[in-house]
Amino acid sequence: MESNRRRPTLEAVAARAGVSRATVSRVVNGGAGVRPAVRERVARAVAELGYVPNSAARSLVTRRTGAVAVVIGEPEERVFSDPFFGRQLRGIGRELAAADTQLLLLLVESHADWTRIGRYLAAGHVDGALLFSLHHGHPLPSVAVRAGLPVVYGGRPGWAGAADDPGVRYVDTDNRDGARQAVRHLRERGRRTVAVITGPLDQTSAADRLAGYREALAPGAYDPRLVADGRFTARGGAAAMARLLDAAPELDAVFACSDLMASGALRTLRARGRRVPEDVAVVGYDDLEPAARSEPPLTTVRQDVTEMGRLMARMLLQEVAGPADPESALPACVVTPATLVVRASSG
Amino acid sequence: MESNRRRPTLEAVAARAGVSRATVSRVVNGGAGVRPAVRERVARAVAELGYVPNSAARSLVTRRTGAVAVVIGEPEERVFSDPFFGRQLRGIGRELAAADTQLLLLLVESHADWTRIGRYLAAGHVDGALLFSLHHGHPLPSVAVRAGLPVVYGGRPGWAGAADDPGVRYVDTDNRDGARQAVRHLRERGRRTVAVITGPLDQTSAADRLAGYREALAPGAYDPRLVADGRFTARGGAAAMARLLDAAPELDAVFACSDLMASGALRTLRARGRRVPEDVAVVGYDDLEPAARSEPPLTTVRQDVTEMGRLMARMLLQEVAGPADPESALPACVVTPATLVVRASSG
Repeated sequence: MESNRRRPTLEAVAARAGVSRATVSRVVNGGAGVRPAVRERVARAVAELGYVPNSAARSLVTRRTGAVAVVIGEPEERVFSDPFFGRQLRGIGRELAAADTQLLLLLVESHADWTRIGRYLAAGHVDGALLFSLHHGHPLPSVAVRAGLPVVYGGRPGWAGAADDPGVRYVDTDNRDGARQAVRHLRERGRRTVAVITGPLDQTSAADRLAGYREALAPGAYDPRLVADGRFTARGGAAAMARLLDAAPELDAVFACSDLMASGALRTLRARGRRVPEDVAVVGYDDLEPAARSEPPLTTVRQDVTEMGRLMARMLLQEVAGPADPESALPACVVTPATLVVRASSG
Repeated sequence: MESNRRRPTLEAVAARAGVSRATVSRVVNGGAGVRPAVRERVARAVAELGYVPNSAARSLVTRRTGAVAVVIGEPEERVFSDPFFGRQLRGIGRELAAADTQLLLLLVESHADWTRIGRYLAAGHVDGALLFSLHHGHPLPSVAVRAGLPVVYGGRPGWAGAADDPGVRYVDTDNRDGARQAVRHLRERGRRTVAVITGPLDQTSAADRLAGYREALAPGAYDPRLVADGRFTARGGAAAMARLLDAAPELDAVFACSDLMASGALRTLRARGRRVPEDVAVVGYDDLEPAARSEPPLTTVRQDVTEMGRLMARMLLQEVAGPADPESALPACVVTPATLVVRASSG
């Protein structure tokens, strides 16, 4: 473990990499203006020697911790079973890494966790926070704002007043339009009774997709028997599909508001002997791994989840850096487009 | 967002919860000796008011940050597609939450990330670190130790000298014995040519399972044609199975050193027209979700991943708390048992 050796110095790193002290310092503090090959050589020397920059001194200069918290308001079981989160984190992580900023992922299981997370955010260990998958009533937004931390939300915040608050920054996708495209597509394929499997309606993404579904139906066609909550999970989607088939056996299409729920719905349809797409056409939402792997391949609504993650990180880094050149500043809210991807499951 | 309101005080929380100031303080600082119902009431008042304890004052008393870093030495793509990590984090998270300690997950994509993570660990933002899935040559262990942080490893560290270092703490499972059980089972079922799909051999878990495989073969039966690296991924397992079938078409069994690799192997066997278990018997490792879901259900080696996570967290919290009562102290290394679970895939 070499735990008794002296802490290596900046000079030792410079000697090992064959560069000047100033170059090492520049690389360690972000790497601007250093050629990639040199940066790589310094990074290797830093790693080999186990060099740790004096970050107390460093943050006296920058007054920053070099870290950003990502808080996902879902039980860890969902975070690790829904590829959506991994994708979004990949986008966030890449953008933060490019700015030499550390991503800290904080998971939330129970109500008590929120208090602890609020405490951590307020204690000066991070420069800002990305909050996503918040359900109505989560106390974290006000805690983070009171702590004075820059915050960017993943998904449009749904609490009262959020829409009119110029201080609220978020990245979303056009959920309503995506849902409209899905339902219109099913109707154009001649489907007459289109059911919907929603996410939990205390999330704006789920509520917006349900609104888009309603808008794209024929006038007067909305029927509560055709709506079931699948909790954004595969198991929930399977159970919702079973309830829909019991309540409305005549249905000939289903729009599942996530690919994971669609995969559950396909399982139920198979178990009930309904052929896809012959008897029931299926459309999902997300265009993540489960869509491509499913049998039959899933028609779905594509959102660029990695890009949304990158945008969130860029907006937060901009906030942390302080007032930006208005020419290059990102807007406070970005809504990315949704695109229908047609595959076999919709006929 | 209520961002203009005054920061709520301890007194306000006490009034709202209908308890004394001292009770609120006790709950906020860990909750020892407070009845669950009262604790719950205080937690609700804290959340409703958005109260943030004065953690600077708090950590002056405890000299702790109340947070622990978990570093997984794998690309985030693997972390989010292998249920092993989610399970282990669940165990860690529960144990830390019970001690009111925040879990911070740090992901690693590239070499440069190690420098930044080392810097974060050394900067006093956490009380300790759990490091897992380290491959040979990772610089982090020495960085963490030099930073003076208590560290517990997930899996036996493999670097030279680690075995004799009394300061190295880890939780592992008996990988060698688990592999022996798998191979013995296949031989008892009459299989004569048992191939193995390994993980990356710069990880001790993968190397130990390969060693167990060799030990359980008939004397002189080891044949390098029957060994292929599946990188601990489903895709890697599928490709490894294809290579094994090309190199040794006579094989009648395969031991895949993770369930995820076994799921890939099953896909290849199906595509090549080999029946499981009639033509080729398959055994996996882990007993996680993919095992139960697979077609046919997978014989596998069970390790209690959640419990391993809990043990890691308990060992670290004990280290952070300082010298423990020798009566109740956990040992520096814990190796949990492995158990064969027989299902249809091995005949």
